[in-house]
Amino acid sequence: MTDRRLNEQVHVIGAGLLGTSIGLALTVKGVDVTFADVSPTAVRLAVDYGAGRAVRPGDQPGLVVVAVPPDVTAVTVARALIEHPDALITDVASVKGSVLSELNELGADVSRYLGSHPMAGRERGGPMSARADLFLGRPWVLAGHEGINYRRAKALEDLILDVGAIPIEMSVDEHDRSVAMISHVPQLVASVMAARLRTASNSAVGLAGQGLRDVTRIASSDPGLWVQILGANAAPVASILSELRDDVDVLITALVNPEAPGSRRALADLIGAGNAGVARIPGKHGDDRRFAQLVVMIDDTPGQLARLLTEIGELDINMEDLRLEHSPGAQIGFAEVSVLPEVEQRLIDELSARGWRIAGASEHSERVAHE
Amino acid sequence: MTDRRLNEQVHVIGAGLLGTSIGLALTVKGVDVTFADVSPTAVRLAVDYGAGRAVRPGDQPGLVVVAVPPDVTAVTVARALIEHPDALITDVASVKGSVLSELNELGADVSRYLGSHPMAGRERGGPMSARADLFLGRPWVLAGHEGINYRRAKALEDLILDVGAIPIEMSVDEHDRSVAMISHVPQLVASVMAARLRTASNSAVGLAGQGLRDVTRIASSDPGLWVQILGANAAPVASILSELRDDVDVLITALVNPEAPGSRRALADLIGAGNAGVARIPGKHGDDRRFAQLVVMIDDTPGQLARLLTEIGELDINMEDLRLEHSPGAQIGFAEVSVLPEVEQRLIDELSARGWRIAGASEHSERVAHE
Repeated sequence: MTDRRLNEQVHVIGAGLLGTSIGLALTVKGVDVTFADVSPTAVRLAVDYGAGRAVRPGDQPGLVVVAVPPDVTAVTVARALIEHPDALITDVASVKGSVLSELNELGADVSRYLGSHPMAGRERGGPMSARADLFLGRPWVLAGHEGINYRRAKALEDLILDVGAIPIEMSVDEHDRSVAMISHVPQLVASVMAARLRTASNSAVGLAGQGLRDVTRIASSDPGLWVQILGANAAPVASILSELRDDVDVLITALVNPEAPGSRRALADLIGAGNAGVARIPGKHGDDRRFAQLVVMIDDTPGQLARLLTEIGELDINMEDLRLEHSPGAQIGFAEVSVLPEVEQRLIDELSARGWRIAGASEHSERVAHE
Repeated sequence: MTDRRLNEQVHVIGAGLLGTSIGLALTVKGVDVTFADVSPTAVRLAVDYGAGRAVRPGDQPGLVVVAVPPDVTAVTVARALIEHPDALITDVASVKGSVLSELNELGADVSRYLGSHPMAGRERGGPMSARADLFLGRPWVLAGHEGINYRRAKALEDLILDVGAIPIEMSVDEHDRSVAMISHVPQLVASVMAARLRTASNSAVGLAGQGLRDVTRIASSDPGLWVQILGANAAPVASILSELRDDVDVLITALVNPEAPGSRRALADLIGAGNAGVARIPGKHGDDRRFAQLVVMIDDTPGQLARLLTEIGELDINMEDLRLEHSPGAQIGFAEVSVLPEVEQRLIDELSARGWRIAGASEHSERVAHE
């Protein structure tokens, strides 16, 4: 508890996944956390999970965290600003500009409001899904604006560091443009691609490989939540989507007349632009050509994978990444092991000598290199 | 060798990744495989790797596999039909209609030509990357057409089964429409999304999570290869892409005026259509909500992951899927373990009792459920 930065009492409004997770993480650090929610049951659950306590007369929170659904965030912040006239108020909604402009329309004192956005979450909501480690190592954006008194902002940065997240400062506009680019437009792109599959033949979807699965994975997201998010960040999303549409139009023109002068060039330019774009994503997934992928066949049993990894460890080879894939309907699984290229051959030789079967890289089955 | 089906000598033209892999897989089964290539060095390499032997006078292949780049496939097939008047000729190019129509234009005897497409490959081409297990468990399409003599087709089905692949019968048109849907359009969608990132700010791409990484992963593909593929399958790709463009237009209209009647509904409908489409993909990745995901923090060392999996095995819990993720720049890794929901709590309890730290599901960091 000695490494705690936050010295304020924290009041959390909204005992859902994010609010309860913040309470759990802060309580572990010894911070005094109180909870409010329109549902008394949700508050009791959060308290039962050890995320904090109910409000008592005389509580003086220095920081109020509003963690309610996007469409009621601004009114809840406005009310909190009035009820807690000495506290800094933040919220955790995933779009920031719409909250700020609604607060300004409501005539709220935004000098004590600093919106934020933890880039963390889970499939399932509710206090039952809360985790003290939810924010560990994740970016948490502080969305600055002209009206904020920056001396007040320190408490929020302390909270972010205390829950193990990484504080990232951005303006409200920069934040909203950024999440449009890295989250909201990718969501829609996955959805429009996946929407095509409704009319595909069974035999067509039966040929699906990892490429299609990756492109469409997030298309299983909740429509209700996304309508709120997209509605709140409509302009930046529309702007990026319009540029994307222009590229799609260029592709269609080239494909409708592939022998026309310039058509091949247009296709190559677009694929090349995608190469350049994906290379900008930091971390190994943006440039995983740095690693050699090795696919090892394993029985569909937990013991055999453990044995494989134990043997890789005994070879003193560091695994950079690992994915496990089951072949549909088969008892065989594939473990895709990523290692530095310089140790690939040694790993193949050693594993083969130990009786492991090395298969091709199933991961990249669509990208057939025909020479 | 007793389970071999193929009784013919096989001649492979093109000693690249696919040709050499076919040779390796058939040689293991005891099939007599010969090689030809415009590059004598490539033939010598394939022979050195044990994929087969050079051609000798008097060879009588019953099956010829043309495994050359897409743009020279048809002329190579046409020549093979003349040079081997008793053999069935196949090719492995990833688009089938363009090869067949080019053969018809050349006046080739297509009664002995049956195109095919193994849904397998690797990032890197060339005989050095060949693997005997490349086709194991992968679909391999036989692309039928009206002119084929079906008694001749059996040799190709035997080859597909002998290399461990799953033969799938489709017409040429059905194949080309299918790969447009499950491979070529997803490639372009990933590319147009990734192309947007070229102009994104560094702080924006710094917030990138797994969703963006998945949507854009295949955008790092080779432009030269894809121009050949897309040029050969232009019409089916253009058709699907036009439908997609229409959906994008609907989205843009809704987002430009999000308060207009019907705008929210249009957004919800599109996300819902994506839900329905992605659910059609067979296998666990299409419906991974069946499984509970648990994220366990591990040191970035191979030994610790092996210990984790050994302990999960000792608990007699079957892992349905596993992904390993490194936190950028951190010494901490995350192992995302998928299990059946009914054993999730026991696994959490048992692993926690053994001192493992369970974190939130980093996998789905963009899909923040705000309540």
